[in-house]
Amino acid sequence: MKYNYLNNLPLDEAKSKYYEHLKKVGFTKKTETVPVTDACGRVIKDAAYAHICSPHYNASAMDGVAVKAAVTFAASERTPVTLTPADYTVVDTGDPLPDKADSVIMVEDLIEGENGNYDIISSVVPWQNVRQVGEDICMGDMIAPSGTALTPSLCGALLAGGITEIEVIKKPLVGIIPTGDEIVTPTADPKKGDIIEFNSTVFKGMLNGFNAESKLYPITPDKKDLIKSAIETALSECDIVLVSAGSSAGRDDYTSEIIASLGTVLVHGIAVKPGKPAVLGEALGKPVIGLPGYPVSAIVIMDEIVSEVVAMYYGKPRLTGETVKATLAKKIVSSLKYSEYVRVSLGRIGGKLSASPLARGAGVITSFTKADGVLIIPQNCEGIEAGEEVEIRLYKPLCEIENTLIITGSHDPLIDEVSDFLARRGAPFRVCSTHVGSMGAIYAVRDGLAHMGGIHLLDTETGEYNKSYVEKYLPDGNAVTVKGVGRVQGLMVKKGNPLNIKEFKDIKNVRYVNRQRGAGTRILCDWLMEQNAISPKEVDGYYNEEFTHTAVAALIAAGNADAGLGIYSAAKMYDLDFIPICNETYEFLIDKNYLDNPMVRAFLDVLYSDEFQIRLSEMGGYV
Amino acid sequence: MKYNYLNNLPLDEAKSKYYEHLKKVGFTKKTETVPVTDACGRVIKDAAYAHICSPHYNASAMDGVAVKAAVTFAASERTPVTLTPADYTVVDTGDPLPDKADSVIMVEDLIEGENGNYDIISSVVPWQNVRQVGEDICMGDMIAPSGTALTPSLCGALLAGGITEIEVIKKPLVGIIPTGDEIVTPTADPKKGDIIEFNSTVFKGMLNGFNAESKLYPITPDKKDLIKSAIETALSECDIVLVSAGSSAGRDDYTSEIIASLGTVLVHGIAVKPGKPAVLGEALGKPVIGLPGYPVSAIVIMDEIVSEVVAMYYGKPRLTGETVKATLAKKIVSSLKYSEYVRVSLGRIGGKLSASPLARGAGVITSFTKADGVLIIPQNCEGIEAGEEVEIRLYKPLCEIENTLIITGSHDPLIDEVSDFLARRGAPFRVCSTHVGSMGAIYAVRDGLAHMGGIHLLDTETGEYNKSYVEKYLPDGNAVTVKGVGRVQGLMVKKGNPLNIKEFKDIKNVRYVNRQRGAGTRILCDWLMEQNAISPKEVDGYYNEEFTHTAVAALIAAGNADAGLGIYSAAKMYDLDFIPICNETYEFLIDKNYLDNPMVRAFLDVLYSDEFQIRLSEMGGYV
Repeated sequence: MKYNYLNNLPLDEAKSKYYEHLKKVGFTKKTETVPVTDACGRVIKDAAYAHICSPHYNASAMDGVAVKAAVTFAASERTPVTLTPADYTVVDTGDPLPDKADSVIMVEDLIEGENGNYDIISSVVPWQNVRQVGEDICMGDMIAPSGTALTPSLCGALLAGGITEIEVIKKPLVGIIPTGDEIVTPTADPKKGDIIEFNSTVFKGMLNGFNAESKLYPITPDKKDLIKSAIETALSECDIVLVSAGSSAGRDDYTSEIIASLGTVLVHGIAVKPGKPAVLGEALGKPVIGLPGYPVSAIVIMDEIVSEVVAMYYGKPRLTGETVKATLAKKIVSSLKYSEYVRVSLGRIGGKLSASPLARGAGVITSFTKADGVLIIPQNCEGIEAGEEVEIRLYKPLCEIENTLIITGSHDPLIDEVSDFLARRGAPFRVCSTHVGSMGAIYAVRDGLAHMGGIHLLDTETGEYNKSYVEKYLPDGNAVTVKGVGRVQGLMVKKGNPLNIKEFKDIKNVRYVNRQRGAGTRILCDWLMEQNAISPKEVDGYYNEEFTHTAVAALIAAGNADAGLGIYSAAKMYDLDFIPICNETYEFLIDKNYLDNPMVRAFLDVLYSDEFQIRLSEMGGYV
Repeated sequence: MKYNYLNNLPLDEAKSKYYEHLKKVGFTKKTETVPVTDACGRVIKDAAYAHICSPHYNASAMDGVAVKAAVTFAASERTPVTLTPADYTVVDTGDPLPDKADSVIMVEDLIEGENGNYDIISSVVPWQNVRQVGEDICMGDMIAPSGTALTPSLCGALLAGGITEIEVIKKPLVGIIPTGDEIVTPTADPKKGDIIEFNSTVFKGMLNGFNAESKLYPITPDKKDLIKSAIETALSECDIVLVSAGSSAGRDDYTSEIIASLGTVLVHGIAVKPGKPAVLGEALGKPVIGLPGYPVSAIVIMDEIVSEVVAMYYGKPRLTGETVKATLAKKIVSSLKYSEYVRVSLGRIGGKLSASPLARGAGVITSFTKADGVLIIPQNCEGIEAGEEVEIRLYKPLCEIENTLIITGSHDPLIDEVSDFLARRGAPFRVCSTHVGSMGAIYAVRDGLAHMGGIHLLDTETGEYNKSYVEKYLPDGNAVTVKGVGRVQGLMVKKGNPLNIKEFKDIKNVRYVNRQRGAGTRILCDWLMEQNAISPKEVDGYYNEEFTHTAVAALIAAGNADAGLGIYSAAKMYDLDFIPICNETYEFLIDKNYLDNPMVRAFLDVLYSDEFQIRLSEMGGYV
C-alpha cells in the first residue's frame, strides 16, 4: 500500500508562498461593462467621477411659485406684497426655475387674490426653496474610488451623476470538479458505500458569498486521465479551479500529481486542522486548488485560502468579517502540530458572551450549521483553559447571536419541536440547544452558560426526580425547575426483538450502546445495573457512548448494537421495538433571573399550549 | 391651486394600522419546491428533518484495514499481533466497513510482513477509526426549523440527510412603477427639467437585500388613468406594488386617490422625516405603497416599511441589523412634528466611536452613499446635544467602519485622489473625508473627531499660513502640521470672462458665491474684502455659502453666480476662466498620536509619491 506523507507547512507560510507565486504569474481581475441599473453589488474597476451635476439645473424644491426674490423683500404681515401673474411662474417640485426667477414661494404661503394675483406676507431670499445645480453631486466629484462595491444608493448616485454604464470587475468563474469512485449525486436513497456529493453545493454557496460565480463539473471517478482532462476543461473555461477530494496522499489521491503535471504545486499539506491535506497549485496562470474530501476540512480551506484567492483576483484585501471577544466555556486541548479551527456556538447570558466548542470531527457538517463563529488556536498553543477570553471570528451577525435562547442539557426532540413552533409564530429570537446531558444542564445553569436546560435526574434513594440534585448542586436557590413532560424510558431493540430481550438485565448478553456520562439516561442505566448487580465489564458496549436518544436508536437500527436505553419517541422514529422500563419526570431547570425572560416565557408558552400537546402525542411516549 | 394636507400619523401607529390590515386580508407567503443544490439563501417553509442518517453506513474514517477489534486486543510493542489476509479488508477513507469488521487500523500503523500479512503493535477498540451510522446526522433529527434561511453548510447538511428537494418561500415579486411627467430613463445628457429616474435602481438593490425580487415597469406619466392601469397590471403580476413619486398631495399627485379607488388607503402621511408623504394602501389583498419622489425620503420608507412588509410576507421578524453606541459629534435640532432619520458617518478615533450627521436634505442621495448608519430621533425629542451617547443603526459592517482613516477639514479634490490611489494599492482601510473647512479641521483634530484634516489658514498679520492658528487653538502641542501641497487660489468666472472681472474688488459689481464660515477660502475672502474696503452688504451673494470648490464652480458654470473664490483645479474641471489671486500652503494637521498610524502613513506615502505628483500636475493649479 502506497502512503506518501504530506508536508505540514504553517498556514501563513503556505499562504505567502502561494500568493507570491500567483502574483508572479499575473493572476488578476478581468473586467466588463454593465449598465449601472444592473450594477448593484458589483465592484467598480476605476474611480467613478460625476459626468453632470445633480440636480443638473436649478430645480424647485417645493410646489409653489417661482419668483425673483427681490420682489418679495418688502413683504410682512403688516405690508403684504401682491404678486401679479407677471411676477411669478407656477412650479411643482422638481420643475426647472425660469431664468428670471431665483427662488420659490411655497404654495402654503400663497394667499389667493383676484385676477390670478397672490398676496404674500413674508419674503424669500435668493435660492430659497430651490435645489441649486450640484446641491447633491458636482460634476467631476469622485462618487466612489476604485474597487468600491456598489450599494443601492451608490448606483443611484452614479445615475444621478449621469453615469449609465460602468466598468466592473467580472466575477471570477470558479470551476468545481468533484472526484471519487464512491461519490454520487444527491439522492434520498443512497446505496451502502455511496457518498452523497454535497460539498460542491456548500462551495457554490460560499463562492457566491465571496462574490464569485461557480460552474459545477460532473463527478469524475478516481482515474488519473479523467481527472486530468476534467481539470484541463475547467482551466479552459474558468478563472479558478477547485478539485474536490483526492487531495491527500492515499492510494487513490491523484490531485497533487495531476496539478504538478499541468503546472506547479506550491503547497501540499498545510498545518491547519481540519484542512491539512490541501493542494495549492497553479496551471496556465490560474489557481488550481485541491480541497480535502471531508466537508469541514474543505470549508476551512475555502474560508482561509479560496476566499483570499478571490480577494486577490479583485485586488482587494480579504474581509474576514467581524470578531468578538468571548469567554471560553470549555477547555480545549490542541496539537502543536497544527493551528486549529474550532467551531463554536456563542451565547449571551447576562452580560457575558460565552463560546462553546462544537464537534471537532472533520466529517461533521452540522458543526458548521450550528456554528456562530470560529476560534482559531495558533499552532504554537497547546490549548486554552475554560474561562479564558478568546477572539471569535463571527459567521453570523452579532444581533442574531444576541437574540438567542440557550438551552443546554438533556436531549429531547421536543426542544427542537418547540423551537419550530416558535419560528412559525415569528418569534424574534432563535433557540440554540446543546445536548450535554442532565448534569451538563446543572453545570451550565450554575455557571451562567445557559438560560435553561432539560433535566431528568433520578434520585435513587427517594425515587424522586431532579429535586435533590438541584438542592445539592445549586444550594443557593438561584435556579428552579419548572414543569416539562413525563416520558417513558425503555430499552430500544431491533424490530421484532430478534434476540428476545425482555428486561433490563438482558443487556448482559447483547451488544449494548450507552449514553455519555452525566446524561440522565446514563444515570438511570447505572442505577438499573446496580439494581440488577451487573458490572460494566459484563456489558459489551458499555463504553460505546452516544449523546442523543436518536443516535442510540440509529446504531441499533444499523445493527452496530442490539440494545440501548432511550425514550419511546426515538424508538418510534426508527421503527424499533421498545421495552418500557419506567416513567420519568423531564423538567426544565431555569436560572431564577430568567424566569421572566421573554424568550424563556415564549418557550414555556409553546410547551404548555394545547397545540403543542397534540404534537407531543404524535411523537409518542410522553405521559 | 389644489393643495391637500397630508396626515401626520406617528410611525408606530402607521405601521400597526397597516400591518394589522394586511394580516386581516391574509397577506402572506407563497411557496415553491426547489432542488437543495440551488436552495442556498432561500428560506424554508417547514422544519426539515433528516430522511437518512449521515453517514448512512459505518464508514472507514481512515485509509487502512478493517478488522474485528477483538483480534487486535493482545497487540503491544512486545507482543505484536500478525493479521493474515483473512483477518482484514483493505479500506480507504469513506469505504463501508465489511459486516464482520467493527474497527479500522490506520495504514501508518501497519507493518508489512510476508504473504500479505501485517504486524501491529497496538490494539484498536470497537468502532475506532470508524464513522458510525449517524455520527453527523441522525434520521429524524430536525436539521433546521421552519423559516430558516439556508446557509451553504445547511444545504450540505440537508443533502447529507437525504433531502434533495425542499419547499421554500417564493421570493415575493415587487413591482416598481416610476411615475412623473418629468422623469426620464437614465441618461448621460438630460435636458433641463428632466429628472433622471434612479430611484427604481436603488429600490431594486434594496429589495434584493430584503430577499425579494423586483419587476420594473415603464415610466408612467402623471395621468390618472395611465397610473391606474399600470397599478392594475402590477397587481395582476406581483405580490407587492410600489408606486414611485406622486405620493404627496400636490397638483399632480394621484397615487393616494388611485389606490383608494382600487382598494384601501390605510395611511397617507407619516410623521417621519424624511419620508412623510408616503401612502400605505392595499388592493386585491396585496400591499400597494406610494413612495415619495425624493430619493432619501423613499429610502427611509423602503427601510422602515417595505422591508417590514417583506418580512411579514416571510412570516419572520424584520431584522434591522446591528446597532452601536456612539458619541454625537455635532448638535442636532429636530422637530417635534416628526421622528427624524439622520444619516451619520462613524469613525473610531482612539477608543471613541463618533457619529457625524450628514446632509439632511431629502434630495441628497450622497448622504446615503456616505452614511455608515442612521440615528433615529424620536418624535418627542427636540434634538440632541454634541457629546451625548446615541444609538446608531448600522448600514455597514462595524469592522469596515473601524478601519477608516478620518480626514475632516478643508476641501481639496486631492484627498479623493489619494483615497483612490490607496484603494488601487489594495489598502486594508478606507478613507472617509468630510468638508468642514480649515477651522473645522482644527476643531475636529482638537476634539479627537478626526485623525487628520487639511488646513490653509492665512495669518493676515504675518502672511504665513497655518502656524499661528495651530499655536492658538492647539496650544498644548498635541497636533502638528505636515507638508501638503502649494496651490493657487483665485476668482473663478464664466468662460471668456463676459463681465470682464480683473481683480478681487470687482466682486462688488457681480453676483458672488461664497464659501461657508470657517473655510480657509472664506477667511481669505474676508481678508481680501478688508484689504479692498468692501463690506458684506456690498457683495450680492455674500451669504450664498457653499462647502466645496467644485460646488462654487458648478454654480458659476450654471449661471447662478458670476464669480467665486476657489482653487485652479476646480475651475479647470468646469472649464471656467481663472484669475489667480495668491499661492497658498495647504497642509495636513495631524494629531501627534496618529503620526505613526499606518493609515496616516499610507496616506502621506501616496501624497508624497512621484506617481501622485503626476496626478497633481494633471489636475492643475498645484505648485
